[in-house]
Amino acid sequence: MTEDIHPLLLCGGSGTRLWPLSRKSYPKQFTKLTGEESLFQASARRLSGDGYAAPTIITGSDYRFVVTEQLAGVEIAAGATLIEPEGRNTAPAILAGALDLQARAPGALMLVAPSDHVIPDAQAFRDAVQAAVPAARAGQLVTFGIRPDRAETGYGWLRLSAAPEADFTPVPQPLKGFVEKPDAETAEALLADGMHLWNAGIFLFSTEAILAAFETYQPAMLAAVRRAHAAAERDLHFLRLDPEAWAACESESIDYAVMEKADNLTVVPYGGAWSDLGGWDAVWRESGPDVAGIVTSGPATAIDCADTLLRAEDSQQALVGIGLSDVIAVAMPDAVLVAHRSRAQDVKKAVEALKARGMKQAETLPRDYRPWGWFESLATGGRFQVKRIHVHPGAALSLQSHHHRSEHWIVVEGTAKVTIDDAVKLISENESVYIPLGAVHRMENPGKVPMVLIEVQTGSYLGEDDIIRYEDVYARGQGAKG
Amino acid sequence: MTEDIHPLLLCGGSGTRLWPLSRKSYPKQFTKLTGEESLFQASARRLSGDGYAAPTIITGSDYRFVVTEQLAGVEIAAGATLIEPEGRNTAPAILAGALDLQARAPGALMLVAPSDHVIPDAQAFRDAVQAAVPAARAGQLVTFGIRPDRAETGYGWLRLSAAPEADFTPVPQPLKGFVEKPDAETAEALLADGMHLWNAGIFLFSTEAILAAFETYQPAMLAAVRRAHAAAERDLHFLRLDPEAWAACESESIDYAVMEKADNLTVVPYGGAWSDLGGWDAVWRESGPDVAGIVTSGPATAIDCADTLLRAEDSQQALVGIGLSDVIAVAMPDAVLVAHRSRAQDVKKAVEALKARGMKQAETLPRDYRPWGWFESLATGGRFQVKRIHVHPGAALSLQSHHHRSEHWIVVEGTAKVTIDDAVKLISENESVYIPLGAVHRMENPGKVPMVLIEVQTGSYLGEDDIIRYEDVYARGQGAKG
Repeated sequence: MTEDIHPLLLCGGSGTRLWPLSRKSYPKQFTKLTGEESLFQASARRLSGDGYAAPTIITGSDYRFVVTEQLAGVEIAAGATLIEPEGRNTAPAILAGALDLQARAPGALMLVAPSDHVIPDAQAFRDAVQAAVPAARAGQLVTFGIRPDRAETGYGWLRLSAAPEADFTPVPQPLKGFVEKPDAETAEALLADGMHLWNAGIFLFSTEAILAAFETYQPAMLAAVRRAHAAAERDLHFLRLDPEAWAACESESIDYAVMEKADNLTVVPYGGAWSDLGGWDAVWRESGPDVAGIVTSGPATAIDCADTLLRAEDSQQALVGIGLSDVIAVAMPDAVLVAHRSRAQDVKKAVEALKARGMKQAETLPRDYRPWGWFESLATGGRFQVKRIHVHPGAALSLQSHHHRSEHWIVVEGTAKVTIDDAVKLISENESVYIPLGAVHRMENPGKVPMVLIEVQTGSYLGEDDIIRYEDVYARGQGAKG
Repeated sequence: MTEDIHPLLLCGGSGTRLWPLSRKSYPKQFTKLTGEESLFQASARRLSGDGYAAPTIITGSDYRFVVTEQLAGVEIAAGATLIEPEGRNTAPAILAGALDLQARAPGALMLVAPSDHVIPDAQAFRDAVQAAVPAARAGQLVTFGIRPDRAETGYGWLRLSAAPEADFTPVPQPLKGFVEKPDAETAEALLADGMHLWNAGIFLFSTEAILAAFETYQPAMLAAVRRAHAAAERDLHFLRLDPEAWAACESESIDYAVMEKADNLTVVPYGGAWSDLGGWDAVWRESGPDVAGIVTSGPATAIDCADTLLRAEDSQQALVGIGLSDVIAVAMPDAVLVAHRSRAQDVKKAVEALKARGMKQAETLPRDYRPWGWFESLATGGRFQVKRIHVHPGAALSLQSHHHRSEHWIVVEGTAKVTIDDAVKLISENESVYIPLGAVHRMENPGKVPMVLIEVQTGSYLGEDDIIRYEDVYARGQGAKG
């Protein structure tokens, strides 16, 4: 009988290097960067099925409903969903996951995996995980080493005790040490000697082994995270770690906090394809450039280009490149990035520049995801705003009222159940209803298909925070986003 | 007493080199490329006021209401607006303008001007025109020669009889000849010898002189255009040249058809700034690059760029360039161009590529201009469409009905007068009305300020051609755009 492995999916990150597609409001791991499902969904599916227990998720508060919705989309139920009050790098997140799992399944084997990596061959990866089980069960902290195919300076490297098998069979061996992100010359040497692999930040260990390591090397962090977990509050099916205790915890990577200090380290080589999609240059590389080095997606057209990535993210927006070499262009209706390919790691500067200018495109997408569905603004004027609102089957917005605006709702797909003060009625496609200023109202989708509604707001103030909530199935507070 | 000069503004062109800003549905001359007014408006204002008669306009049918609206915007009334059934290059257009003016003001002096050029110093230009009057009155065909500042291969050049004054005082002299667009080496020689100027396609002559020249050199063209003008139909305040006669006319430039053959040619040097904005490289040059060669407009940000044009045409769309050299990027919500600066003349290839893919962005803008105002689509779904409709004060849409859709109208600015079958009512801001499928309806703006309305259409077919017209103040037919 094989023992179930418990995945811990880290998905609290909000990286900016894939702006404008990845934004703080909806970061990389939730986007469909490379296929029909998001990186997070692909990660969850890779570590599901026979031999895997329900995953533990750790994420930020803003992403909790996205996590729920995306897991539902791939029909995976989380074992637990922890909410970090704020990002503290990987060590506290992994520790919180280990404490939570230890309480539910003492001594379980936990597989820690970032949720924003691409690993196309799921079976090969699961085989490598299986190969690591005996060492993990024996108390080792097992890390996975990726076969390098270039002298990459953007990753840490792992030093082997012995050369891996020629065919990269995943045979565990003692890990000799960590190499921090090298300079170009060092990276060439690491690649050439065949005794170094990339550190992908993927680990397998028992909860006992990792908790013992924290006990030895990070007793203060262990104490803080223990407090944050003990004082955690349940919110629907989420577990909110205690903000005060969490704030006392240092922000640290698992490598620096524990791994580089521990002496019970094992590495399992992994020879399959892997990418962290750490920038648009990586996306270009992983997307399979043609012989001229061109990658296009969406309605993008390359004319006389070379070594160029042209991504049109919206089916209604055309992107044309002419005579470009080594250029990355990513077009969205509200934001466009054009960068030299060698400058992919500077995309975060774009985000900083837009934040400095106070532009919302720095951090938020036009589409705003909520527990009940999503909405986007179609047009705004001095005293009006038009929104498209998409409500999932069975979902309901909060019972609410506004001080400063009235609303016209026109249903264009599906059927809405609408409450206005004491009246409840069903509104079908091509029917409309008017919500006077001050009226207490709610919108629900009682049907089995999505309901789409056009909302025309008029009033002197149209901010999302003009909302008084009376009831909310998603337990959100006054003035919070609706 | 000075004699009035009659401008003939050529604005039928639909050039593609400034795509995506300039499109067939709304070409360059009507766009605000460089300032608060369009190039056409600036051209009309430059040739108005003391000493100038009301301009004659020649344009395409699709642009007739744009011309009307833009002239109204600068408070200029056209003397006549001729409509070319199709573009036949400059010779037939100038000839049609001359015939029309000869009928209204026999022997008048006509100044022929493209409407898509930039000439910042209007007074200096008018001084040059005044300097040309005696020669034109004496029967000369006067052309204006632009002082060259680079060895441009994209223009034709004019050969002088004598070097111009050092300060480029506009002293007329006999024109020795035309030089067709030269190669780079020839252009260097033309620039160096000081005896050549750029041919801007601007002319002054009497109607009698130009008609005599056509009689001599292009009798067939004269006969065809005479027929097209004689059989022209009046349509509101427009004069539609006869399509059949026009179709018989050869497509030819005025230079090739007449000027290069004539022997009564005078040239007036013009030393002021001028540009035909014949591509994005010219727009970059004319927009005043900073010391790093950077030009930005709208919410565009350049990070570590050089010799680069970044234009964000919409205030709601951010554009960021990082590490770019010699790049042109023009972002619009529905289309983005990124080109190497040396390939500015190949932008027409983008348009061809999009046409080949059947993409509407090749030729049409999201905003659709009509005689009564404009509309744009905000969202489309399987069975719905949302539009923002902007109606000018005093304007009215046609009385119409639809076979396949019903419409919800919500007024968000101003007041609408709405006719539905036999009922007429006023709808104010924050009020709505429903137009059932099949109902005969009309929307008007009876007010003094623009009326803005959100229209939500639902139905099985939502094409613009599902329209039955009963009455139209703009004399448009069944199924024609509304």
